[in-house]
Amino acid sequence: MSQPSDRRVLITDCADAKGLIAKITGVCFENGLNIIKNDEFVDNTEGRFFMRTELEGLVDEASLLGALDEVLPAHHHTSLKPAGRKRVVVLVTKEAHCLGDLMMKAYYGALDVEIAAVVGNYDKLRPLTEKFDIPFHHVCHEGLDRHQHEAALAEVIAPYAPDYLVLAKFMRILTPEFVGRYPNRIINIHHSFLPAFIGANPYRQAWERGVKIIGATAHFVNNCLDEGPIIKQDVIHVDHNYSALEMARAGRDVEKSVLSRALGLVLADKVVVYGNKTVVF
Amino acid sequence: MSQPSDRRVLITDCADAKGLIAKITGVCFENGLNIIKNDEFVDNTEGRFFMRTELEGLVDEASLLGALDEVLPAHHHTSLKPAGRKRVVVLVTKEAHCLGDLMMKAYYGALDVEIAAVVGNYDKLRPLTEKFDIPFHHVCHEGLDRHQHEAALAEVIAPYAPDYLVLAKFMRILTPEFVGRYPNRIINIHHSFLPAFIGANPYRQAWERGVKIIGATAHFVNNCLDEGPIIKQDVIHVDHNYSALEMARAGRDVEKSVLSRALGLVLADKVVVYGNKTVVF
Amino acid sequence: MSQPSDRRVLITDCADAKGLIAKITGVCFENGLNIIKNDEFVDNTEGRFFMRTELEGLVDEASLLGALDEVLPAHHHTSLKPAGRKRVVVLVTKEAHCLGDLMMKAYYGALDVEIAAVVGNYDKLRPLTEKFDIPFHHVCHEGLDRHQHEAALAEVIAPYAPDYLVLAKFMRILTPEFVGRYPNRIINIHHSFLPAFIGANPYRQAWERGVKIIGATAHFVNNCLDEGPIIKQDVIHVDHNYSALEMARAGRDVEKSVLSRALGLVLADKVVVYGNKTVVF
Amino acid sequence: MSQPSDRRVLITDCADAKGLIAKITGVCFENGLNIIKNDEFVDNTEGRFFMRTELEGLVDEASLLGALDEVLPAHHHTSLKPAGRKRVVVLVTKEAHCLGDLMMKAYYGALDVEIAAVVGNYDKLRPLTEKFDIPFHHVCHEGLDRHQHEAALAEVIAPYAPDYLVLAKFMRILTPEFVGRYPNRIINIHHSFLPAFIGANPYRQAWERGVKIIGATAHFVNNCLDEGPIIKQDVIHVDHNYSALEMARAGRDVEKSVLSRALGLVLADKVVVYGNKTVVF
Repeated sequence: MSQPSDRRVLITDCADAKGLIAKITGVCFENGLNIIKNDEFVDNTEGRFFMRTELEGLVDEASLLGALDEVLPAHHHTSLKPAGRKRVVVLVTKEAHCLGDLMMKAYYGALDVEIAAVVGNYDKLRPLTEKFDIPFHHVCHEGLDRHQHEAALAEVIAPYAPDYLVLAKFMRILTPEFVGRYPNRIINIHHSFLPAFIGANPYRQAWERGVKIIGATAHFVNNCLDEGPIIKQDVIHVDHNYSALEMARAGRDVEKSVLSRALGLVLADKVVVYGNKTVVF
Repeated sequence: MSQPSDRRVLITDCADAKGLIAKITGVCFENGLNIIKNDEFVDNTEGRFFMRTELEGLVDEASLLGALDEVLPAHHHTSLKPAGRKRVVVLVTKEAHCLGDLMMKAYYGALDVEIAAVVGNYDKLRPLTEKFDIPFHHVCHEGLDRHQHEAALAEVIAPYAPDYLVLAKFMRILTPEFVGRYPNRIINIHHSFLPAFIGANPYRQAWERGVKIIGATAHFVNNCLDEGPIIKQDVIHVDHNYSALEMARAGRDVEKSVLSRALGLVLADKVVVYGNKTVVF
Repeated sequence: MSQPSDRRVLITDCADAKGLIAKITGVCFENGLNIIKNDEFVDNTEGRFFMRTELEGLVDEASLLGALDEVLPAHHHTSLKPAGRKRVVVLVTKEAHCLGDLMMKAYYGALDVEIAAVVGNYDKLRPLTEKFDIPFHHVCHEGLDRHQHEAALAEVIAPYAPDYLVLAKFMRILTPEFVGRYPNRIINIHHSFLPAFIGANPYRQAWERGVKIIGATAHFVNNCLDEGPIIKQDVIHVDHNYSALEMARAGRDVEKSVLSRALGLVLADKVVVYGNKTVVF
Repeated sequence: MSQPSDRRVLITDCADAKGLIAKITGVCFENGLNIIKNDEFVDNTEGRFFMRTELEGLVDEASLLGALDEVLPAHHHTSLKPAGRKRVVVLVTKEAHCLGDLMMKAYYGALDVEIAAVVGNYDKLRPLTEKFDIPFHHVCHEGLDRHQHEAALAEVIAPYAPDYLVLAKFMRILTPEFVGRYPNRIINIHHSFLPAFIGANPYRQAWERGVKIIGATAHFVNNCLDEGPIIKQDVIHVDHNYSALEMARAGRDVEKSVLSRALGLVLADKVVVYGNKTVVF
């Protein structure tokens, strides 16, 4: 009998060609698998095909991927995402709202995730973290250069072997070396509606510009700051009554909401990165 | 070479079973068709499978549907929607906003539709209609009983052989007999967020209740007033400053927007009705 | 020098008349008070005037209200809301999301409120509550009739002398007697976009009706179930992919967001009740 | 008896001081005027006070403004906006959606405005304009330098003495000289969520960046392109399925909606410009 643990997500990414859906779903059928949900997308500009297939049944992974190798065009990528709860480590600085929301949602089951640890460059969020019986590590950046600090972070993180790192208002810029250890596995929340107000103090910038909307962007981190593939964005309306400080306060609600929804999509294996973009199935 | 006129939409609706996507897309592939976009949905409560497949290529319709007959479970429904612009007749009373929006969007190409005629139980919207060189028919209800009036409407509508009727603030209740001539082919805009405020004067009701949101609902019309399958809904925020009249005025914007988006979905063969619900692909 | 504790909110509610703003703000000025923010509203249907005046400065309350008595029409109501953090008691049953959000926002300062205690008719949310060092009282309803249970609730609540009771998914219907003890001081979150789907299991009702939007409503509780003055409403879009259960899950986000925003408005003395409606300044 | 033509809007803009509301509303009261609606705003960063007062009654304008002069701080600005329908000239290039929406809304009364004329640098929108019996002027830019073209525009516009110019997808950059003739009286719709994607082809930029939201911004035009005070912004959600072209098409709906709502606010004298920002009452 099929259990939730019999569920897998198959991601296919290859050059577009005729008959791909028939071929892939045919292979799944011949392997005795039931398709729970199937979504595909073709980027016609680049002639590229993407498909996400949620499968149920006992999978012989090697056999399935081998059979797909035979029917798919050259240079294809397939991956079979394992079932089961994923593990994340959350990096923070001083602000509690994103971390608090993630822990609370994990606690009551709105996010199906194991928050294995929280790491802060300040110690401020330790008491909040420990309320939820999650280990907190203070890795202070003071007196260390960037590479020393990142080495210390990496050392603390490594034993948890996280599937993803979540930057929940972590206010440090990461080097390409650090980011390179977790390709497309670091999720950041940026406190603006990118690409507006890149850089420091976006709410101050927004206030000075007199905007009527502020937003937040969750994205994967790659080598360029604030420039990785966007997963989710949302906005709220503001008006002249908001000071820069009040914009920042109002922005927290949309920040935490966007981050937790983006993480939910990633955890459900619904996000495929290609180039500097995402397909969000 | 494939032209837009080579595009068809195949809708499949049948009992759920293993391998359906593989079988259907396999038949399409064997018939030399390219799949532009494929979407499926399984209602697990009812064990029912729905798929919308956008096809490109020269179709031998009988051959395709025949081949599908052989692979699909008993009691399946398949339909192959022809390419090309669809034709509608719009029914109105006195309010211009929905009709005006539909004609304007058809004029500049935001809605790919032929508005063959407008029929009003008042003559008020004739000048607006004729600006767009669309025939207007005044079918007055005065002095006629409901059946006589509907017979007169049907007589005026028939020569246009419309694919759909659009009730753009048509303030008359239609009988089951009339509705029965156009099964799932009459689209209505209801000036409330159904199922709240069913019946007369919903904005007055909303104002009296002190609601903070008003909405509009586009739905297919079936035998029960305001009760057909919902296609699209949207809302806007209001507050204590709005009188019932101002709510009605503000509501017009959401009414016309919901109606034209619902019509756009229907015209693109993205809406499948089952029971009193819709699947909107 | 003026401190935050020198801030007061003056609410005026009276028959409409010429010159009211001039008279009220004149009295404030003569009493040496600075107006931080002033908002007024006239309900022209009922000829009724409402004003919220945020004042700064040392107030001699009796002198101010006395001076207002002399310039306002007969049968006016004025109230001067004290500065300072308000105290609430939260009532819950088994669902954690609304309580969790309130406690988390109070913790990091997004809601300026003292959650004095949480009272549950089940014991399930005790561990979550106690993480935040808030007393939890289990007042089980089993074996008690409605009046006995409410007497027990009232006894537990009384020592906290709360400014407001917050029903954070408290799944019991309160009697008029109980409600009468806290006139316009009980805030409920209803898991539907009132007045649609009044009553039991609204998400099931919504799913059966095939709606494309679900919502939540925060309102004051009066004698009629689900019928009190609405403070805040919001919605999210859903589609055919949502089961009744998934609608309920998705609805939790909008429920907690609407409840905490409604409470924020009430705590800031921005909500004035009249009849079965609210003015939300 | 008071007629709509007895309505005026008084805008006050001055240094903040104690008692301003009392003084201004007191002067209105002493002049026998009834206040229909009063809104004020203090920019605490700049110590500046703004008030919008909607007045009813027969006004002796000189007497009212003179009395205000005596009670307001030095360097104040007051203006009394006359009642009655305002007149605009609309500038267009080739796209119909914004112009069409403005004309349609003016036709059925959703915008209380006289569209005195439409001026295009192409002739393409003449037929649409003339459907609504509005004069269309083709002022071709070919063969003219920027200053010659603007001189020709100005000559065509001048006889209509418009209160405002509306740039409804007018794809020409205006010189400071031209803009200087209509200070804070030119309203533009920019097809992006400013300040993201300033400059050419914003939808292409948005698509390349892989954004999940696109928007539109209505703003007053000043000397710097795309940099004037923002009146209104709104967004819609998009996803990977949208090509750059489809983003542009989807964007039209939000463009026309934002432009017509911004114009509605300006026509109702609800927008006050200060520096590079607006107060929108």
